[in-house]
Amino acid sequence: MLPFARVAIIGLGLIGSSLARAIRAEMPTVALTGHDASPEVREIARRIGLCDDIADNAGAAVTDADLVILCVPVRAMETVAAEIAADLPPECIVSDVGSCKGEILAGLTRALPGRIVIPAHPVAGTENSGPESGFATLFKGRWCIVTPPDGADPAAVERVSELWRRVGANVEIMNAQHHDLVLAVTSHLPHLIAYTIVGTASDLEDVTRSEVIKYSAGGFRDFTRIAASDPTMWRDVFLANKDAVLEMLQRFSEDLSALQRAIRWGDGDALFSLFTRTRAVRRSIIEEGQDDAAPDFGRSH
Amino acid sequence: MLPFARVAIIGLGLIGSSLARAIRAEMPTVALTGHDASPEVREIARRIGLCDDIADNAGAAVTDADLVILCVPVRAMETVAAEIAADLPPECIVSDVGSCKGEILAGLTRALPGRIVIPAHPVAGTENSGPESGFATLFKGRWCIVTPPDGADPAAVERVSELWRRVGANVEIMNAQHHDLVLAVTSHLPHLIAYTIVGTASDLEDVTRSEVIKYSAGGFRDFTRIAASDPTMWRDVFLANKDAVLEMLQRFSEDLSALQRAIRWGDGDALFSLFTRTRAVRRSIIEEGQDDAAPDFGRSH
Ligand SMILES: NC(=O)c1ccc[n+]([C@@H]2O[C@H](COP(=O)([O-])OP(=O)(O)OC[C@H]3O[C@@H](n4cnc5c(N)ncnc54)[C@H](OP(=O)(O)O)[C@@H]3O)[C@@H](O)[C@H]2O)c1
Ligand SMILES: NC(=O)c1ccc[n+]([C@@H]2O[C@H](COP(=O)([O-])OP(=O)(O)OC[C@H]3O[C@@H](n4cnc5c(N)ncnc54)[C@H](OP(=O)(O)O)[C@@H]3O)[C@@H](O)[C@H]2O)c1
Repeated sequence: MLPFARVAIIGLGLIGSSLARAIRAEMPTVALTGHDASPEVREIARRIGLCDDIADNAGAAVTDADLVILCVPVRAMETVAAEIAADLPPECIVSDVGSCKGEILAGLTRALPGRIVIPAHPVAGTENSGPESGFATLFKGRWCIVTPPDGADPAAVERVSELWRRVGANVEIMNAQHHDLVLAVTSHLPHLIAYTIVGTASDLEDVTRSEVIKYSAGGFRDFTRIAASDPTMWRDVFLANKDAVLEMLQRFSEDLSALQRAIRWGDGDALFSLFTRTRAVRRSIIEEGQDDAAPDFGRSH
Repeated sequence: MLPFARVAIIGLGLIGSSLARAIRAEMPTVALTGHDASPEVREIARRIGLCDDIADNAGAAVTDADLVILCVPVRAMETVAAEIAADLPPECIVSDVGSCKGEILAGLTRALPGRIVIPAHPVAGTENSGPESGFATLFKGRWCIVTPPDGADPAAVERVSELWRRVGANVEIMNAQHHDLVLAVTSHLPHLIAYTIVGTASDLEDVTRSEVIKYSAGGFRDFTRIAASDPTMWRDVFLANKDAVLEMLQRFSEDLSALQRAIRWGDGDALFSLFTRTRAVRRSIIEEGQDDAAPDFGRSH
């Protein structure tokens, strides 16, 4: 049996449009409605036939739904929840895909008192955004973390989990606070560092921007992909997951200082020993199917 | 006309074996000899027919060469140069592919007084090493930086440059010191940061290693590829290019502190403005042909 029959997706960017495509592909009988704040995005969504119906306002999109999934930037979640509150059917489950969960859970609970709120986060994406960058297989083989509030109805949690399994994801249940700590290290800190180094490299006086670009194949170009991610999305993530991000950043800075000292004092053994340890992590990621085994991510050479 | 007729490659790992394959593919009449310190590597090189001849010692590989290219780790360059000094024909040009140039130029000049030394660095690679990970097209469309000493014979510089052009690289001439500063930011600092964050993530108490691996698709996995690079090679790079790496690291740390402050004080505008600026760098890299335009490096989804 399908976990839901009538799904509304609010926010039709990379994640929302990928989910719409995946639901179409895997559960074609589900009735899909969509809404996006941007008229251009709605126009594109209509043109490419992303959903059965694209509504001009959020409330109209949800009137008939048994599941609403909010796919907007983290700090827009509560606003959108308030917009749909009056039109939401009583039994309808509200979920979302935001990259941090603690603040969103609090916001949705505030905006939707007494409603069924089951947040989730699919750990999958690309550096692109917008409705045309989505694709149906984005979630295949990736993890989706569901973060129900204390005392949530297990049947509702299971239905949301089942939706994600149907689009190809593995599901893990976690509390929102632990989610935010884990993602601070596997996603938010990497983005922060990538944005920083690309900024640093752009601001040098002795090395030109053109040199940075020409010789980027030495490693730098990998960071520029991450640092090309959506500014609004990432601003929201860092503001919403401040404590966990600052904690991970503190640890990272300490480790970087230790390495700096090792270089300064010519301690080759310390360098060698760290560089040997880190290889094992890569191996595990490939073994667990979370990255390509092909060298250089399979870039064409 | 071919720039060289008899080329000897010392060190048959990723770069040495890729160069051997590329020379075979693009200049099939060149007589190729090879040597590697490791008997296993020599054995593999013979089995896969990498060169016309694989010599058991470095001296024997160079007796007849008009170009010798050292493809060993940075800190082994001077040792290998000393090993070949007695057997080197007087007119033979000695070059190398090491990732930092200042220290190598000094070392080769010490070990080979009065000889023609024209160092170079192809800015191309993967995270793998060893003779079986090489491939002929590695240098295509990448840059090779040639760093001749003051007063070098322009004809010798041109012959080395032409060799790299023939295997598909674009060539740039630079002095060794400037090379080391440029590569500190486009290659060495990115590797240092990647090694650090992978180390940090492995050492947490509140987040397990298994969680880090499962949710690595949020960005972290990109860093593990770089942090899986050869430990010997990278230890040598950081020791040999200490000053430039420490300078870039200092700037990076200052920029990271500024971002940390912006997060702590909830300064969303500062975050947004940096995150917008960094996108342009990615665009330029793709426009200049230094990375794939495909989302997510073209990983299969
Ligand atoms: N990208 C990833 O890698 C990734 C991965 C996992 C989870 N997420 C999460 O998924 C969510 C969406 O990210 P995305 O990558 O899909 O971003 P995106 O491509 O930028 O799409 C977001 C869409 O939401 C619209 N929107 C903004 N505010 C709205 C509002 N108040 N009401 C209705 N629509 C609104 C945006 O319209 P405008 O064009 O007018 O702004 C945009 O079309 C975020 O919470 C993010 O944290 C992202
Ligand atoms: N990998 C990259 O991305 C890249 C890019 C541009 C430039 N480079 C530079 O290219 C050089 C080679 O790197 P690579 O990636 O090709 O490394 P690699 O795959 O590890 O190959 C290096 C080879 O040199 C051998 N070797 C070590 N010391 C030697 C000696 N004294 N005499 C003869 N052979 C010796 C090694 O043998 P063992 O197996 O016994 O150690 C190994 O087979 C380094 O200087 C590096 O900085 C690398």
